[in-house]
Amino acid sequence: MDQETRQINFAFIGFGRVGRAFARLLVERKKWLLKTHAIEWKITGIATKDHGMAIDHDGLPTRKILASRRRGSSLDRFHNGPECASHLDFIRQCGADVLFEMSVLDLSGEPAATHIREALGAGLNVITSNKGPVATHYAQLTRLARLRDVRFLYEGTVMDGAPVFNLLRNSLPGTRILSLRGIFNSTTNYILSQMEQGTTFEAALEYVKTAGVSEADPSHDLDGWDSAIKLSVLIQAVMGGRVKPEEIERSPISSDIGRAVRAALRRDRRLRLVARAYRQGGKVIGKVELQELEVFDPLAAIRGLSNILVVNTDTMRELAIVENNPSVDQTAYALFADLISLLR
Amino acid sequence: MDQETRQINFAFIGFGRVGRAFARLLVERKKWLLKTHAIEWKITGIATKDHGMAIDHDGLPTRKILASRRRGSSLDRFHNGPECASHLDFIRQCGADVLFEMSVLDLSGEPAATHIREALGAGLNVITSNKGPVATHYAQLTRLARLRDVRFLYEGTVMDGAPVFNLLRNSLPGTRILSLRGIFNSTTNYILSQMEQGTTFEAALEYVKTAGVSEADPSHDLDGWDSAIKLSVLIQAVMGGRVKPEEIERSPISSDIGRAVRAALRRDRRLRLVARAYRQGGKVIGKVELQELEVFDPLAAIRGLSNILVVNTDTMRELAIVENNPSVDQTAYALFADLISLLR
Repeated sequence: MDQETRQINFAFIGFGRVGRAFARLLVERKKWLLKTHAIEWKITGIATKDHGMAIDHDGLPTRKILASRRRGSSLDRFHNGPECASHLDFIRQCGADVLFEMSVLDLSGEPAATHIREALGAGLNVITSNKGPVATHYAQLTRLARLRDVRFLYEGTVMDGAPVFNLLRNSLPGTRILSLRGIFNSTTNYILSQMEQGTTFEAALEYVKTAGVSEADPSHDLDGWDSAIKLSVLIQAVMGGRVKPEEIERSPISSDIGRAVRAALRRDRRLRLVARAYRQGGKVIGKVELQELEVFDPLAAIRGLSNILVVNTDTMRELAIVENNPSVDQTAYALFADLISLLR
Repeated sequence: MDQETRQINFAFIGFGRVGRAFARLLVERKKWLLKTHAIEWKITGIATKDHGMAIDHDGLPTRKILASRRRGSSLDRFHNGPECASHLDFIRQCGADVLFEMSVLDLSGEPAATHIREALGAGLNVITSNKGPVATHYAQLTRLARLRDVRFLYEGTVMDGAPVFNLLRNSLPGTRILSLRGIFNSTTNYILSQMEQGTTFEAALEYVKTAGVSEADPSHDLDGWDSAIKLSVLIQAVMGGRVKPEEIERSPISSDIGRAVRAALRRDRRLRLVARAYRQGGKVIGKVELQELEVFDPLAAIRGLSNILVVNTDTMRELAIVENNPSVDQTAYALFADLISLLR
């Protein structure tokens, strides 16, 4: 295919671990993108919550900014564009074709949902790894994207870079998902599977905190919220249900879980925090439950930080996808895979 | 999308369990295909090895033929077209746009490879569930398809309907597969995992024979050939290696395997027939080996007729796909998924 090289401009909201890993991946794959997709990219804006913002329509110096953020400096000194009073102002002025929304999750989905709405409304494509706004405003945001004829993609919201949405939408044509279940929260799964090996709740929790697996405050992992938000995204995006995170029943995990873990082990079973969705009389029901699983259940075999999704379909029976011990690089890859979907 | 309805003609070579399941699926999805892909299909030819052949350019009566095959009748009475002296003659005269090659596997890949070569050369798209010709003639057949600007698709050759090729090619853009391993043969996996539960080799083998999982002669399952052929297809199609089935080292399984199964169990391990491929100095190496696996290895958790593929990548680390207890309907679905890829 002979194509003319296209210039494409990116803007980032959020430049934390995911944003920086994604920027590094873009730099690494610069030649590949030119060769296989005939695109030259530049980053024309980066906005953060606590480390300033910068716009440069000629392209920000990505490598320098990465080095500067490693030293903890603000982005402001790279700014070479119009004054912006707010992130919404930033979206309107950054001159991007694609906005990558990677701000920190707030469970209400804000301010990310407002960023995404503003960007889609202004005719930008949006790619996000931020599950909050997708779960909370799925119908509105997808409708807006259709209306403005732009793409809204969110592969990184569930199971990081494992191609969940890509697979279920593109690789299983004509297939209806009857039900699904999975383990989507690494923090609780690490804790439960480590406790089976004799680790205490506190020691396992400490590990996920220091390893950066959970947020500094892991309560949204432990109370099932993180799983419920991801389940809500799945239900809306691949089962056509309209189930908000708050409509999903949850069982929380706390330090007194040890007894239940050991009781399950004695019965040669495994305790897991299972997210599941099924159809009932035209509706989809979602639940996040502590379940005792048979040792041969594929979900019981998921240990540590790994995640699994099992879908039960009308054409393919049961199909499972497992992501082993993901890191932030996998989330960055999800954003990259969405970018390629957009370019195709 | 407003599209004019397209007429598309299919021909089948082979009308055994897979071919009939695929024909039933086409009938079931007739309205869906018209609605979502704006196509009307007809089957203009079916050729079998032992049950005659039929051509009708106005379309063969699919339901009647399915009923007639259930009663064991020959297809000849449905013939309403030019005389055909051979299957090659059939390919040239059947008037199809897409040939579905579903004849019984011969390890040499013949006569299926000749059918496919003839069809591609005549400008037909080819979809096959027949791994023999793909493994043996991959380079030649894919080159020929490119040259004639038609599609050559084979999703059903590995792990039935699980979207292996679809996923690895379309859903993981810019990803290099560094290595892969899996369990691709249901017969041996059923035997090994049943023996762990105390079943004898003979009883387990009898089950897979009567359940139609293995061929009447299961020796190609037991001696590792079936796994090696599938591994060869994977290596060529997704790792860019040129490894023929006969270049793959194999460990066979026989009735004296019980001792090794029990010895592994005593060490809290599981014996599995593992197919794996890895890169070494610019080449890809393939092996089919009996391995003792840690109980938490995802491959150890695969029991019964289920299959698994684990890929290790440069972007996504490790990703696994599991197909649970497939049947012939899943192979039929693979052909259907390939058809949709072709229509897109």
